[in-house]
Amino acid sequence: MADVVKPRINIITFGVKNLPMMREFYEGLGLHAASTSNDQIVFFNLSGVVLALFDHQRLAEDAEVQHEPMQGYRGVTVAWNAHNQQQVDEIMGHAAKSGAKILKAPKEVFWGGYSGYFADPENNLWEVAHNPLIPLDDEGRLLLS
Amino acid sequence: MADVVKPRINIITFGVKNLPMMREFYEGLGLHAASTSNDQIVFFNLSGVVLALFDHQRLAEDAEVQHEPMQGYRGVTVAWNAHNQQQVDEIMGHAAKSGAKILKAPKEVFWGGYSGYFADPENNLWEVAHNPLIPLDDEGRLLLS
Repeated sequence: MADVVKPRINIITFGVKNLPMMREFYEGLGLHAASTSNDQIVFFNLSGVVLALFDHQRLAEDAEVQHEPMQGYRGVTVAWNAHNQQQVDEIMGHAAKSGAKILKAPKEVFWGGYSGYFADPENNLWEVAHNPLIPLDDEGRLLLS
Repeated sequence: MADVVKPRINIITFGVKNLPMMREFYEGLGLHAASTSNDQIVFFNLSGVVLALFDHQRLAEDAEVQHEPMQGYRGVTVAWNAHNQQQVDEIMGHAAKSGAKILKAPKEVFWGGYSGYFADPENNLWEVAHNPLIPLDDEGRLLLS
């Protein structure tokens, strides 16, 4: 395939039940809704990737798959990487104050990093991690080779 | 919060049942596994964000949530944006040849774009889209304001 269509992820969309509430949660967390957001869909531009919120039933319809109730573990997580352990603690504290549910308080973990998990109000899982083995660039992106 | 911890998504992790098979699928699709990948976890660096594959049960354990079987619709999708309609068709054709299940053949859609959906072998949903309203920058990132 030509370089121009090299694989990438531009958007991750969370299907949501309560869009206004979820928008408010993420704005409280510090995300800024793009001006193209409206009462049907919300976009947060996170530098390298866009987080979108869209009605969970309409998302299933758009993909032409059967809608099923969403509850519990979905088998997908996102990670927010920090420069050091203190930042992980700060982010987790900020998330808790913003209404997130703390699933796992930050601690040193088996792979050599320091990480915790929170869930947003509709149970999307976020890991907050410092990985001493993989540095971040100036834009906060992981320098993976 | 200080700028240095501004919200971002560094990694999207798909919990998987069959890691070698899923790695092979994504490599066939054109993704390159980072050298830090091993038989426990695979990382694909997609410029702005990293796609990781990790065992679905261990992912639940890591998040300290109860594991539940994954099947059907998970309420989460990722999108791969192309520069034009022809590229969308090319990517969807390439995905089909790589073993993806085509859920929705590309077509013009209600929001003014052109998009299709495929599922990877464990039913993670990918939208392939051209959005004439939101240009892509030189790195292929959406220019959202």
